[in-house]
Amino acid sequence: MVIVMREDASEEQVQHVISRLIDMNFDIHRSTGVNNTVLGAIGEVHNIDKRNIEVLDGVSEVIRITHPYKLVGRTFQPDDTIISIKDVQIGGDEVVVMAGPCSVESASQIDAIAEVVKQAGAKILRGGAFKPRSSPYSFQGLGEKGLQLLRDAADRHGLLVVSEVMDKTKIPVLLEYADILQVGARNMQNYDLLRQLGKARKPVLLKRGLAATIEETLMSAEYLMAGGNYQVMLCERGIRTFENYTRNTMDISAIPVLQKLSHLPVIADPSHGTGIRNKVAPMARAAVAAGASGLMIEVHHDPDNAKSDGAQSLFPEQFAQLMRECEMIAQAIGKHLGQGAAK
Amino acid sequence: MVIVMREDASEEQVQHVISRLIDMNFDIHRSTGVNNTVLGAIGEVHNIDKRNIEVLDGVSEVIRITHPYKLVGRTFQPDDTIISIKDVQIGGDEVVVMAGPCSVESASQIDAIAEVVKQAGAKILRGGAFKPRSSPYSFQGLGEKGLQLLRDAADRHGLLVVSEVMDKTKIPVLLEYADILQVGARNMQNYDLLRQLGKARKPVLLKRGLAATIEETLMSAEYLMAGGNYQVMLCERGIRTFENYTRNTMDISAIPVLQKLSHLPVIADPSHGTGIRNKVAPMARAAVAAGASGLMIEVHHDPDNAKSDGAQSLFPEQFAQLMRECEMIAQAIGKHLGQGAAK
Amino acid sequence: MVIVMREDASEEQVQHVISRLIDMNFDIHRSTGVNNTVLGAIGEVHNIDKRNIEVLDGVSEVIRITHPYKLVGRTFQPDDTIISIKDVQIGGDEVVVMAGPCSVESASQIDAIAEVVKQAGAKILRGGAFKPRSSPYSFQGLGEKGLQLLRDAADRHGLLVVSEVMDKTKIPVLLEYADILQVGARNMQNYDLLRQLGKARKPVLLKRGLAATIEETLMSAEYLMAGGNYQVMLCERGIRTFENYTRNTMDISAIPVLQKLSHLPVIADPSHGTGIRNKVAPMARAAVAAGASGLMIEVHHDPDNAKSDGAQSLFPEQFAQLMRECEMIAQAIGKHLGQGAAK
Amino acid sequence: MVIVMREDASEEQVQHVISRLIDMNFDIHRSTGVNNTVLGAIGEVHNIDKRNIEVLDGVSEVIRITHPYKLVGRTFQPDDTIISIKDVQIGGDEVVVMAGPCSVESASQIDAIAEVVKQAGAKILRGGAFKPRSSPYSFQGLGEKGLQLLRDAADRHGLLVVSEVMDKTKIPVLLEYADILQVGARNMQNYDLLRQLGKARKPVLLKRGLAATIEETLMSAEYLMAGGNYQVMLCERGIRTFENYTRNTMDISAIPVLQKLSHLPVIADPSHGTGIRNKVAPMARAAVAAGASGLMIEVHHDPDNAKSDGAQSLFPEQFAQLMRECEMIAQAIGKHLGQGAAK
Repeated sequence: MVIVMREDASEEQVQHVISRLIDMNFDIHRSTGVNNTVLGAIGEVHNIDKRNIEVLDGVSEVIRITHPYKLVGRTFQPDDTIISIKDVQIGGDEVVVMAGPCSVESASQIDAIAEVVKQAGAKILRGGAFKPRSSPYSFQGLGEKGLQLLRDAADRHGLLVVSEVMDKTKIPVLLEYADILQVGARNMQNYDLLRQLGKARKPVLLKRGLAATIEETLMSAEYLMAGGNYQVMLCERGIRTFENYTRNTMDISAIPVLQKLSHLPVIADPSHGTGIRNKVAPMARAAVAAGASGLMIEVHHDPDNAKSDGAQSLFPEQFAQLMRECEMIAQAIGKHLGQGAAK
Repeated sequence: MVIVMREDASEEQVQHVISRLIDMNFDIHRSTGVNNTVLGAIGEVHNIDKRNIEVLDGVSEVIRITHPYKLVGRTFQPDDTIISIKDVQIGGDEVVVMAGPCSVESASQIDAIAEVVKQAGAKILRGGAFKPRSSPYSFQGLGEKGLQLLRDAADRHGLLVVSEVMDKTKIPVLLEYADILQVGARNMQNYDLLRQLGKARKPVLLKRGLAATIEETLMSAEYLMAGGNYQVMLCERGIRTFENYTRNTMDISAIPVLQKLSHLPVIADPSHGTGIRNKVAPMARAAVAAGASGLMIEVHHDPDNAKSDGAQSLFPEQFAQLMRECEMIAQAIGKHLGQGAAK
Repeated sequence: MVIVMREDASEEQVQHVISRLIDMNFDIHRSTGVNNTVLGAIGEVHNIDKRNIEVLDGVSEVIRITHPYKLVGRTFQPDDTIISIKDVQIGGDEVVVMAGPCSVESASQIDAIAEVVKQAGAKILRGGAFKPRSSPYSFQGLGEKGLQLLRDAADRHGLLVVSEVMDKTKIPVLLEYADILQVGARNMQNYDLLRQLGKARKPVLLKRGLAATIEETLMSAEYLMAGGNYQVMLCERGIRTFENYTRNTMDISAIPVLQKLSHLPVIADPSHGTGIRNKVAPMARAAVAAGASGLMIEVHHDPDNAKSDGAQSLFPEQFAQLMRECEMIAQAIGKHLGQGAAK
Repeated sequence: MVIVMREDASEEQVQHVISRLIDMNFDIHRSTGVNNTVLGAIGEVHNIDKRNIEVLDGVSEVIRITHPYKLVGRTFQPDDTIISIKDVQIGGDEVVVMAGPCSVESASQIDAIAEVVKQAGAKILRGGAFKPRSSPYSFQGLGEKGLQLLRDAADRHGLLVVSEVMDKTKIPVLLEYADILQVGARNMQNYDLLRQLGKARKPVLLKRGLAATIEETLMSAEYLMAGGNYQVMLCERGIRTFENYTRNTMDISAIPVLQKLSHLPVIADPSHGTGIRNKVAPMARAAVAAGASGLMIEVHHDPDNAKSDGAQSLFPEQFAQLMRECEMIAQAIGKHLGQGAAK
């Protein structure tokens, strides 16, 4: 921590700050400039609320000089994390695609969709089973039955399964059916849930909150890793800004920023990132071009009759076309995507 | 709903939109202008995702013309809701003050603070017992023991109790000790928790989320009321903006806006709204001047040694001074505050 | 305009609103629903401040149903505008690249840069001549001399010239030297400047303001077109959000949104959109993948010694590599980039 | 400046950074911690773009430790600036009120309004004369004639005059008629205008831009002061956020923040801060309660027929009522307001 004293700070105030820092187990390095005294507080001290120093008399500013996260950062792990699930590697040269409906609605629906997304190059089937919606009258999902249908369809078509875990009581049932447990944007700072998932031994896909900074997103990933779960993927899915033509503003620049700061794979979700079908393809392509390790895309064989999020779901033919474009874009930056890669 | 067709929409496209709307049980009112065809979709239809119409060919824009909420709005209840708890009325002419530490730390701490806030004019004692913090190494609260200490101190000093319910499993224990159950900003859209609290028979204080619009805040309150709990207070505690000199930007204008749209009492929390002690008093005064029905303020008898949020807690004498100022401000707009008013 | 009356609006209030609308030359279409009366106000009425209706008693909401712009929209011109300048077409299948330094510094500097950007595939040379900086002590640009050097270097290497016009007094000198006049983000709503540029007979590149909505951006373009200048390009260059890891948040989704709403070419400026060199390439690729008609990129042969914006300028070899990648990405969506790429 | 090196930075990288800093005339203070090397760069060096250091290899973060402004800050001038114009003091114990119409429309209009605002306690008459509006068909103001009418009405009623200067060519005419020259939010970073106003010898009221941080606002004020004009007032008038129920989000907390950082008077403009009449009074009261040195409020004797901004203009009786409330609120914090206070 660097503590910048005000130019008019008295020696007594400087000494008081120093003694408080020593109480907190810091070593102090004092530097007296022409204008300001600057104190360097050095030490392996965790969980300091820097505002406790900021409120002291004579202090102008307190600056943290180490990132608050360790495990997610590149300092101790410079190389990219690659998460292997069966024959799929996430975080390497392949852009891995997760696709499927917002909600699992029926056996025939999820099977039809699994078939089309597999054919187009997806490796992982997505689908929601528990849907606590903003209206109590809306479709609430099929629950465990939905997970079973999702698993069955995925197995039939050689796909992995990703599904959202809404609260900690649902972790066991998700662990039974899914290969990847998704933490939704609203739960990104649900520390109770993160703590439990830290103990899980399956990969977690952590979505960035609507108003979460990049650093807060990394801190939530740190929470998972501190609990012992090193298989964490980050997911950009749009932030809230003044612009409301699109539901959210998808922050494509978060992809290279997260990749620079962290070794964890970064996935992009243009379906929620935009909220409207005809913006999904351009933003999916943009995410691949910016270097994302994967895409999560809502696809429905009959979006007009989807029970949720039909308006942001791609038609099968749109998805297939998008996959072909993304394959070429991936190659432009030395990567590959899905089936195309096998060739 | 009003559906504005594109100027170049074909008659076939208009007919397709009409038939979709009829499928959704709307009555249709068609109006053909010089430039556009405009469709009015009339009916008591809930849970429509308007994006499902927006994606149809020929549609330019879809506009909802009724608020998505009913119970929280002033249409069916024009008069202000007044919540009575023992001898305290929230939502009337009195500005009710809730004060206390961030966390209950010990019997002596909470008793000392209860004494000073009571003396200065507070009616309700606040204090956290369950504190799932962003770091697993931070103080996590005293749990049920903390609630008991909070209740005891409040009873000893003639105060009511408000405390946060972090998840639905904690509702029973909160109901046992607290008079008001607080829903934190991060849980504002935890619909599972809201559904359970809708069944509770104690008042709920619902904090606006960091990135929640005013309409979303009202929708969450609607969720509580739809469950049967009509004793709901709303609480402004700062939103996230580009300005980061203060931790959050406290949206004072939300106070009169919420009051115009809803009959529910609006409380202001300047401690979290600003995050730093020397901005708490000006923003508390501003909230009262703007018409807030109550304040929630962090006070600590020894902020320098508080286990959490010391930097945004007022010293007892600062709080007492603030109460005197707020009393005068309340009177300027025909209200009164705490003890002072009784004189 | 659609005027939604409150559910408790009296007939007298409805009549008062109707008479005000008639005064404004609207035809009124009244529709009485179960809950609300809704008024459609139809007419070719411009410059209405809808708040004047919102403040009337009994009014719940006023909704504009026509876009406030005409000329920039696709209604009257469904086909993409293609701007031809000499042998360069902007807005067609080619992704046109504008590149060069932030500021023209010297004859040798601009010549060296013109050579490398030309070789890598750029068609247009950018460079600033008038730089009113935030500090009065910073480099303020070479003025007209800079424009002359820019023109000479461009001519020598077969490039067009784009440069910023800071205020209306500089229009004549820009018209003399530049092929495209750029309006900076801070001037996007400088209506006096826009009015003068509306009379100019050279293309204008209009940058979106830091806090400008998409609609406001289109309105500023409308202003130019209403003045008679139909050769307008729009440029996304980052908006201000709560995330401040990057200087701005580049809103890639604005590219497809603007293209849907307007026929004007959309350019992307990832140098200002991110503010830091190592994020320029991923965001440039993302913009091409999302469908941008062009890129504007800061390149310097010696960024470490650039007089301004060195930190966001690409090295020549980085730029050449980026051009090769963008060429492949353009092809993935049926476009192409520069002549250089064809080789 | 503090330069934090990456934990894996090589000694060579550290040396390269040091040599670059020495080239920039900094003295270097090196501190080697367990994890990082931290460099303190000390010196009176202006106009450094810190990104030029951030892009060097091995650098993790660069932190500026001195505020970029000097003259506006409290270091060299701890006491509040009080601006005296005739018998009015701005920045002292009096809350000074500036009121009047958006635009000067006619002699009788401005005279009628001057009379009512004077009677209610305003000291300064506001009114726009040059109105370059977003539509070329809207009322553009009366120009110099408007300024003359404004001056005459003010003189007749014993008021001062504040009016906006839209660009530098209008400075002379404003200097002739106005006592205070207002810089609008869109011009806050028009450095050419600021440079010219720095040479003026009349007070300037500088409005915060819609997307301007507090630091940027202070930097623009620094620009004025660096030019020699020390009579600067700052004005909060709303920022752009995700919440769009109100036109802008008025940042009341900016008032105490600006007052802590700067000695300049801080004015609040709730008319533009909210954009709608019935929110003006609560936000005006809030601003006074938070400590503003003055208010700027739009008042019209006939808002329904105002040529601009009628919807956010107060009726005379609303304004008079507001003044009475603000007088009591001012007294709650040891201040007073207008004539009313004297009685």
